[in-house]
Amino acid sequence: MVRPARRLFLQERRRPVALDASFLEALAAVLGPRGLVTDPADLASFNAEERGLYRGEATVVARPDSTDACAEVVRLCATHGVSIVPQGGNTGLCGGAVAGANQIIVSTGRMNRVRWIDADGCRMAVDAGCVLADIQAKARDAGCLFPLSLGAEGSCQIGGNLATNAGGVGVLHYGNTRDLCLGLEVVLPDGRIWNGMRALEKDNTGYALRQLFIGSEGTLGLITGAVLKLFPAPTSTATALCGFEDLSRVTRLLSLCRSITGDDVTAFELIPRFGLEIALEHLDGLRDPLEGSHPWYALVELSTSRPGADLNEVMESLLGRAFEEEILSDAVITASLDQRASLWRLREGLPEAQKHAGASIKHDVSVPLSQVPTFIERASAAVTAACPGIRPCPFGHVGDGNIHFNLTQPKGMDKQAFLDRWEEMNRLVHDIVADLGGSISAEHGIGRLKVDEMRHYKAPLELDLMRALKTAFDPAGLMNPGVILPATTA
Amino acid sequence: MVRPARRLFLQERRRPVALDASFLEALAAVLGPRGLVTDPADLASFNAEERGLYRGEATVVARPDSTDACAEVVRLCATHGVSIVPQGGNTGLCGGAVAGANQIIVSTGRMNRVRWIDADGCRMAVDAGCVLADIQAKARDAGCLFPLSLGAEGSCQIGGNLATNAGGVGVLHYGNTRDLCLGLEVVLPDGRIWNGMRALEKDNTGYALRQLFIGSEGTLGLITGAVLKLFPAPTSTATALCGFEDLSRVTRLLSLCRSITGDDVTAFELIPRFGLEIALEHLDGLRDPLEGSHPWYALVELSTSRPGADLNEVMESLLGRAFEEEILSDAVITASLDQRASLWRLREGLPEAQKHAGASIKHDVSVPLSQVPTFIERASAAVTAACPGIRPCPFGHVGDGNIHFNLTQPKGMDKQAFLDRWEEMNRLVHDIVADLGGSISAEHGIGRLKVDEMRHYKAPLELDLMRALKTAFDPAGLMNPGVILPATTA
Repeated sequence: MVRPARRLFLQERRRPVALDASFLEALAAVLGPRGLVTDPADLASFNAEERGLYRGEATVVARPDSTDACAEVVRLCATHGVSIVPQGGNTGLCGGAVAGANQIIVSTGRMNRVRWIDADGCRMAVDAGCVLADIQAKARDAGCLFPLSLGAEGSCQIGGNLATNAGGVGVLHYGNTRDLCLGLEVVLPDGRIWNGMRALEKDNTGYALRQLFIGSEGTLGLITGAVLKLFPAPTSTATALCGFEDLSRVTRLLSLCRSITGDDVTAFELIPRFGLEIALEHLDGLRDPLEGSHPWYALVELSTSRPGADLNEVMESLLGRAFEEEILSDAVITASLDQRASLWRLREGLPEAQKHAGASIKHDVSVPLSQVPTFIERASAAVTAACPGIRPCPFGHVGDGNIHFNLTQPKGMDKQAFLDRWEEMNRLVHDIVADLGGSISAEHGIGRLKVDEMRHYKAPLELDLMRALKTAFDPAGLMNPGVILPATTA
Repeated sequence: MVRPARRLFLQERRRPVALDASFLEALAAVLGPRGLVTDPADLASFNAEERGLYRGEATVVARPDSTDACAEVVRLCATHGVSIVPQGGNTGLCGGAVAGANQIIVSTGRMNRVRWIDADGCRMAVDAGCVLADIQAKARDAGCLFPLSLGAEGSCQIGGNLATNAGGVGVLHYGNTRDLCLGLEVVLPDGRIWNGMRALEKDNTGYALRQLFIGSEGTLGLITGAVLKLFPAPTSTATALCGFEDLSRVTRLLSLCRSITGDDVTAFELIPRFGLEIALEHLDGLRDPLEGSHPWYALVELSTSRPGADLNEVMESLLGRAFEEEILSDAVITASLDQRASLWRLREGLPEAQKHAGASIKHDVSVPLSQVPTFIERASAAVTAACPGIRPCPFGHVGDGNIHFNLTQPKGMDKQAFLDRWEEMNRLVHDIVADLGGSISAEHGIGRLKVDEMRHYKAPLELDLMRALKTAFDPAGLMNPGVILPATTA
């Protein structure tokens, strides 16, 4: 699935000098044979893009195995005026890691050591190239929890999670990636290394540099290491799937969860009936967990590290109360780890199921929680009016006000004809988001995909401030140009 | 108590033009009679400084009553090249709100409306000049909790809390002020207004501007409004005072608290025997809560919003276990709100008690939690060797690794002779902090007081980045010059 040609990656407005022989020689000397990828077959995975919306054209991938080597590569690029696209696990959904022919990719994959772990103090220091699932496993082995969790966790890298301030299913209780990071190490655009690897809860000595690099999508510097926060491992977990007659009841259940369980709601995910149906149809080994059909479902999870807590009991009384108040139509609490895994597979499998159901136009938006039902109703009506037969599949982190408002093509429509309407659908949906005080990118970032939308929806003043920051940190404009910030002229 | 003359505020290196008549006339026209303070008697409180370390010399205080009026004042200052010192409740401890004769203070005190409150959604939007205690009360009236809590809460303003990223006693569970803010409104140095008043949990559309303004101490812009996060009000609270033989046992109790209560430890404050003694001696109506004398005490508080939770029971079993493991020497759980208030008065009264016990040299430092005992032992030994008879009073937010390492003068020593050793003591203590990977300002910020220490302890690269940010946002250098950032030449 490839979007219209103008969406393919061609080149940046500011075209860098060609990758000449002297630059490549110097690069090879720094990186050694294992650290430099130029073979077209080996380049393919670095040039691939998760959703097939872009085609990368990089001919050179640098794979430094240390912060110092990474800094040398960046310095060399600064000297030669070569622009850099940082790349972690290459799982981003907005084309932020796609490189052009005159750029090099700096891949962090070989920088994958856990530097230290302090289980008592609930801290862990890692290289940027550590795979998220490996970090989760290391934390678990030490009796702790690293709560960042998302679909790509088996291959995404923590450096990319930090660069994009990734979200996922644990944000409701544990916050975004930003909230899980205490310290950072960054190679600056001139090749200097900022050592901000602090492990402190409180440090008010100057501007929030760490916060600025987090979420800047590699445009201000290249993240090479981080100090992460861990949490005590949960001792009790309860998981349920709930069915609802309408959306307002979904948000009412969340309020009830919070008032009954205190801080123990750790996931609250929306699934529409259409999503459930395509998951049952296209994914193996799933069955409908509830009898009858319900327009909306929520996957609700409680967890705590309090010893002796029985959250299944809490969940039972919570759902009992929700029945009494006529919030719920039906619900099931999982009785085994297998059942729990099935529910999560149903939720996590929605993007995959959607691929089988035809072409999709996607949105990753957030609105204030109270506006979620209004948003979904208005946006569904707008896209249906514009494209009769379209099948909205709004799902995801409703507890954070974050909806993946994905649109499956009408049955029988030509895929490309549907995808050609991507911008049109974006405008319809994003206008409603803006009207409700929401965000057009809740957790995926901007990348290349939403740069034009930034020009449309961000206040010029805010773009001015962003440009001032970019110029202050990267005056030559060599770090991931074309990402996050629209060019000054349209 | 006044520190050596060189510490008095005299003037900035970059002396702005004098406040000429045309500027003052234009200011009066914008602000009206109630908005402009020039009478020396009325100016006194704006020129006072909390610790008496500085003497302000401002002759003009602007008190705009709206964001638009504030923006007009800032624009006027930009036009006339007049530099601005933003001031909230003027309770800061580092001289960040002290103005010179050629500067004007812009006080946010008249901008004190709660803009809206959404109790269901746990959100509240406020003007920057709202007093913290008023915000707490409004939240409480709506059945919620705004957890920021600190000694000055009766007069400090939320704008100042945000500008300094204030800490306090609730950080352990709820985070710093930064973590309690979802949206911000800022008047930029050129007088434009940035409307970042979002109420979203997730928004990944560009650089983290909000994070950058928070903690920048009024040097990048003037905060005029904020969207705050509220929390469900606690339904159960348990408070105890514990006595310990040594410091390592204090941190062991914190670990035990966390493993036994999960997320329910909401305060964990250190008090040394010396602190307890001077509090009993100098504050009215307090008595020693424990029999016998213990070198160290901790005020421990558990709280939760789970209905039906009995945290006194949890506290009892927690302390029982701590006795068994020989962590505790003695402990008492409060049995009434009055008893609880007394314990907190003991803790919150330490700075006042110290004033009665003689001159103090103060430090607000943090180290990784595991290093707290080492830090206190090493720093106490170092200052005692340099100044025999000195009485260290390390107290505060030990759960965050944040110690107010305050030093009371030796008995009988001349106050000024002791205070003359301020920088010498700072160097001794901060060297140990730096050696342990800590911060020389955990929660109070830098202000004017610690600017020289920044030059000494911050990496030049980090100062470069800070300067680049300052120049990008405030090229004319008119926003709180001399604060946070040392001048480029010594």
